[in-house]
Amino acid sequence: MPKAELLDPQGKAVAGALSRLGKTRFTGVRIGKRFEVTVDGEVDAALLAEVRELAVDMFSNSVIEDVVSVDVLDAAVTA
Amino acid sequence: MPKAELLDPQGKAVAGALSRLGKTRFTGVRIGKRFEVTVDGEVDAALLAEVRELAVDMFSNSVIEDVVSVDVLDAAVTA
Repeated sequence: MPKAELLDPQGKAVAGALSRLGKTRFTGVRIGKRFEVTVDGEVDAALLAEVRELAVDMFSNSVIEDVVSVDVLDAAVTA
Repeated sequence: MPKAELLDPQGKAVAGALSRLGKTRFTGVRIGKRFEVTVDGEVDAALLAEVRELAVDMFSNSVIEDVVSVDVLDAAVTA
């Protein structure tokens, strides 16, 4: 996700559209990326740690983005 | 996320980079979007349903994208 202290113009545009639609309970929208990585076999702790490292070093631009979560989805979700 | 039957060139590029780095356990990468919507007050079932509807109708392009999950994060995560 874009770092909290940075302006997210895409999110601002969506938040503006929501308020024009009269949806006043939504106070903000921020838009980031979601990566789904498919692996061979079971996900163990070492592999998850490797993905976490990749997420920080390679998937995200650490100047403007934070990694907010790295989770395991079951096979049915990613198939 | 991009629909499973569609090519995701961005994801393919990342998957190619992983294999060039010798990380052979990763067989695929797909890249989509993540929206974080901030709300005033508690999230009840009705509001969650409304966000789910917005995710399908407004946040995603249903021609090329699927909504894969709509979850509630606690205040600490989104603050």
